[in-house]
Amino acid sequence: MDGKKYAIIVAGGKGTRINSPLPKQFMLLSGIPILMHTLKKFHECFPETELILVLPDDQFFFWDNLCKKHNFTLKHTIVKGGNTRFQSVKNGLELVKEEGIIAVHDGVRPLVSKELIKQAFLTAQKYGNAIPSTPVNESLRKFNGDKNIPVDRSLYMLIQTPQCFSSAPLKKAYEFEENASFTDDASVFESSGHEIVLIPGEPGNIKITVKEDLLLAEALLKFSKSESLAQ
Amino acid sequence: MDGKKYAIIVAGGKGTRINSPLPKQFMLLSGIPILMHTLKKFHECFPETELILVLPDDQFFFWDNLCKKHNFTLKHTIVKGGNTRFQSVKNGLELVKEEGIIAVHDGVRPLVSKELIKQAFLTAQKYGNAIPSTPVNESLRKFNGDKNIPVDRSLYMLIQTPQCFSSAPLKKAYEFEENASFTDDASVFESSGHEIVLIPGEPGNIKITVKEDLLLAEALLKFSKSESLAQ
Repeated sequence: MDGKKYAIIVAGGKGTRINSPLPKQFMLLSGIPILMHTLKKFHECFPETELILVLPDDQFFFWDNLCKKHNFTLKHTIVKGGNTRFQSVKNGLELVKEEGIIAVHDGVRPLVSKELIKQAFLTAQKYGNAIPSTPVNESLRKFNGDKNIPVDRSLYMLIQTPQCFSSAPLKKAYEFEENASFTDDASVFESSGHEIVLIPGEPGNIKITVKEDLLLAEALLKFSKSESLAQ
Repeated sequence: MDGKKYAIIVAGGKGTRINSPLPKQFMLLSGIPILMHTLKKFHECFPETELILVLPDDQFFFWDNLCKKHNFTLKHTIVKGGNTRFQSVKNGLELVKEEGIIAVHDGVRPLVSKELIKQAFLTAQKYGNAIPSTPVNESLRKFNGDKNIPVDRSLYMLIQTPQCFSSAPLKKAYEFEENASFTDDASVFESSGHEIVLIPGEPGNIKITVKEDLLLAEALLKFSKSESLAQ
């Protein structure tokens, strides 16, 4: 795929994880910090991708040391995170100088496949954006006042990252004022009048938010390694 | 935990998987059919549990052969599935003759932990029911006509099984007429006037519905085995 490529890896808003001993993005997965897996995945898919890592500024020093400790020499630019995800992505977008395709990805989704990254970039090149989604395959309930009620899960979809966009309209969308309905980049993008394009996500592209997710990720990583060795 | 225990394992409504070459519940996980993992898990947790397997009647013969092939001798009673999940569970309930606690569990959730089964039974014994749930940790969208819109994921919960209940009120709840809002046993139970009790579910307690889920399950199972060997 021709054309300029960016990946904005969003790794936690400022101070939101203050009570956690170590933010999830730095935790080791197969001996390597989660964020390094994530950055490497984009590089391995399209080596020319410009990698932009958005990190709370009080974690810069820690990250720098972590890179030295793990001999992590993959070129990437670090940008200061904002108070919200919207602000963090906006800060990342300021480093996008050329026209091209931008992937925005959760730092704590290290297990995204190269196939999904590729598909998202290709679809966004063709249609302007690409948003991975998966069906909800468990019963879903919704809080309604102090009660919670069953809802029809077939009407819902779970949204993953990487979400890919043409750079110009995404940057334009981020010039509007932030509002509470912006839960991800797709919602920002469509608020400026674009229709979003869904592509199939992956059950294994999990977001590591609790300790159990890390175990799940460890299992998946070991398994995928043993599978590729077996081939 | 004293008292009579039942586990109704629900394994597919009649004919709904007619286009699938092999229903997911029979697929091999670590060399053993998924349903056998599921049944064993309940037995290992509380060996006295009466196991009731609800299966479409056109799969009885296949299952019988599978049990012979895999030397699966764990005692369980097979009941004919209905046209809907509601009917299937109702058929299972007809075999519950004594008062006690009933767990209703998806056949295709073989990775449920013994801790969760135990917790669900204990909570139901104390409070009348126990429903495992997990937060939605991905962005959520909802179809609205031909559009789909972002919704606030913090208002939603994903519901898992095993769902455990005191036998008498559950049987009573299943005497009412089926309606479309019955997506699981919790919704049936509360429709007869009971409040449901949520307990924490498990990220690893996945429901195997697509091929990728089977890979995920395989990875988790191998990992948990290697972990327990290492202890």
